Amino acid sequence: MNVAIMGYGVVGSGVAEVLKKNHESILKKSMQSTLELKYILDIRDFPGDENESLIIKDFDTILHDESVGIVVETMGGLHPAFEFVSACLQAGKSVVSSNKELVAAKGDVLLRIAEEKNVSFLFEASVGGGIPIIRPLSQCLAANEIDEMYGILNGTTNFILTKMIDEGLDFDTVLRMAQENGYAEKDPTADVEGHDACRKICILASLVYGTHVYPDSVHTEGISKIDLADVEYAKNWGGVIKLIAQAKKVDENRLSAIVSPAFVPGSSQLANVHDVFNALLVRGNAVGDVVFYGRGAGKLPTASAIVADVIDCCQQDGTKKAYGWKSCEENIVVDYLDQNTALYIRAEAQAPQEALAAVRNTFGAVTVLTRKDAPETEIAFVTPVDTERALRTKLDTLHSVKPLSVLRIAEC
Amino acid sequence: MNVAIMGYGVVGSGVAEVLKKNHESILKKSMQSTLELKYILDIRDFPGDENESLIIKDFDTILHDESVGIVVETMGGLHPAFEFVSACLQAGKSVVSSNKELVAAKGDVLLRIAEEKNVSFLFEASVGGGIPIIRPLSQCLAANEIDEMYGILNGTTNFILTKMIDEGLDFDTVLRMAQENGYAEKDPTADVEGHDACRKICILASLVYGTHVYPDSVHTEGISKIDLADVEYAKNWGGVIKLIAQAKKVDENRLSAIVSPAFVPGSSQLANVHDVFNALLVRGNAVGDVVFYGRGAGKLPTASAIVADVIDCCQQDGTKKAYGWKSCEENIVVDYLDQNTALYIRAEAQAPQEALAAVRNTFGAVTVLTRKDAPETEIAFVTPVDTERALRTKLDTLHSVKPLSVLRIAEC
Repeated sequence: MNVAIMGYGVVGSGVAEVLKKNHESILKKSMQSTLELKYILDIRDFPGDENESLIIKDFDTILHDESVGIVVETMGGLHPAFEFVSACLQAGKSVVSSNKELVAAKGDVLLRIAEEKNVSFLFEASVGGGIPIIRPLSQCLAANEIDEMYGILNGTTNFILTKMIDEGLDFDTVLRMAQENGYAEKDPTADVEGHDACRKICILASLVYGTHVYPDSVHTEGISKIDLADVEYAKNWGGVIKLIAQAKKVDENRLSAIVSPAFVPGSSQLANVHDVFNALLVRGNAVGDVVFYGRGAGKLPTASAIVADVIDCCQQDGTKKAYGWKSCEENIVVDYLDQNTALYIRAEAQAPQEALAAVRNTFGAVTVLTRKDAPETEIAFVTPVDTERALRTKLDTLHSVKPLSVLRIAEC
Repeated sequence: MNVAIMGYGVVGSGVAEVLKKNHESILKKSMQSTLELKYILDIRDFPGDENESLIIKDFDTILHDESVGIVVETMGGLHPAFEFVSACLQAGKSVVSSNKELVAAKGDVLLRIAEEKNVSFLFEASVGGGIPIIRPLSQCLAANEIDEMYGILNGTTNFILTKMIDEGLDFDTVLRMAQENGYAEKDPTADVEGHDACRKICILASLVYGTHVYPDSVHTEGISKIDLADVEYAKNWGGVIKLIAQAKKVDENRLSAIVSPAFVPGSSQLANVHDVFNALLVRGNAVGDVVFYGRGAGKLPTASAIVADVIDCCQQDGTKKAYGWKSCEENIVVDYLDQNTALYIRAEAQAPQEALAAVRNTFGAVTVLTRKDAPETEIAFVTPVDTERALRTKLDTLHSVKPLSVLRIAEC
């Protein structure tokens, strides 16, 4: 069996490296007589690279070479990744992808082609980097109805939040630091505004609930507006702020899904996930809480997940994979404003004591939070649980307080 | 496809319950037209039980019924479980077992029969209850060489240690408490002396390193001698005491494996595993650290892992499973005394200051630990890293100190 890699960036070169480094054990597990890397497709040149002789520029070389049974897509982006992957699957080649943008946008279409052609389309590396998540979710937890999932699925934002929490540095300072040491891109929007985490929870929700969940149906907030004051109030409350991507079953046909920074109780396993690490908490109706934890990105962790999928393609050679999901005909994601939550609210109030009295009158039993050296006009509290719409409507009626920050409380 | 359950205890009845509760989604995932529970083998009577009509006493009924393609073994113990499982596999039936004693003692033999007969022998539930561990280890991490594994694999001991740490209760008090609420057996030996954790690490090591590792080749210490003084010193050191089952690759042909209570640094993911929860930290050469966390025992969690295996048997119907391990011809586990470790030592010394000077002379730079209200004649310290044999030999030369407790430092 021959393998081709499309996209020789950080992850693609990691795949080449892992295939070489652990070649003997990989070959044994793949149950093939050979497993050779034959082509690497990239528009760039790599003079002096150890795999220079494998580099090609023409996609058709891969497409028309029948000895290539498995194609690894590590190009990223929607186009031309979608066209290339479609063509490979149509040609009867199995495809392994780490491209969450592709899977989140076109997973249903690609899975359908794979099924029709009786080949595999696998994407373990698209969520959680090297952490086994997608296969355990689809296989090991198959006996469960998954009631809900909570994930820390983006390493960049978790690194930033960890530094804010542990070292008291503000968002802009840490973002610069993250960019300097390669944990954040020059344009950090996809990470810090939650889009990356959103794509990943869409993939997981599609897999678990069986219907494609599109990123633009999921309300998404990033962490760029988190203030150190919020970090301190979270501590006072007994927890930490994390960027949480969550999905819950609402009823047989609908689910809720949201990505936003949230207060996470200190007792949660997710509270202890630091730096660039990722974790997913899955709540099954039989198994209870299960957590998967590890490095959510990085060259070798991600490559290891891809290579595991390559091995799986070899083992499954000629038999179709059992998982997939159907296309979405109508939006199955309910409005997040109709979901129950408690809210943390930090606000400015010229007369704090009177304002808190009004808050209690409006919300009932709130938990008032404090922090050292707070401005005299600042108040902070956590509301009881209600629909977010009801809570925000109540907040709007409080003319004596001016909200500075509103965050959800996660039940993980 | 029909299913039979052998052993209608806590776990066996949980399997019946999960099969019924999630029947529709299980049937869909199993890709079978039917998936019916046909027999439950048990020597006891269950008058009034909802599955009373399925209870049989004669194993041969299952063995000779060709409509039974999958047999679930939840009897526990070595005999007659081994004979029954062997016979089922020989008869061409797939078997799913939660019986760690059976798998740890006879896994190699049973896997060989399964391979010969082209059926599945699966045992996800034998380690970590409902947490997906065995399948991710064998599949998702297939692209890695696993350098080492550290597990909290026994819920009873972790519950006891958690109570000792959090509430300052002594071992005997907490053991009684655990027995009263069903977290510990009347005869708690297998749990508290580490035998249960030992069986589990043997199964994992066999799977990862490809050769059967027998429980009696693994040095095993329990937690019954842990004193609250040790718990306090661990806190002072910056960590907690956990019962750690570990396995490491030493070279191509040998591994180290040991089960013992150990100091775990507070920064480790394993330090935050509380109560009856289990976790396994796997260190791969590509993926880095990955942690699996969840309920390691209990009716429904364990049953969910078994049912996932049942679904897998259905999907794999007619194709053999890719994993297995060979029988052990010579012991591949090295002597634990030759392995490197740091040791925590608590000792009695009539002249503590002089004794600590002698300790420093002998061991070099030790970390001296303190606790409130310690007897004046008590000293405690952590040694530098060396082979355990060298450290213990040095300790023996110190005639001015009388060791009260010696524990390893885990590098997890």
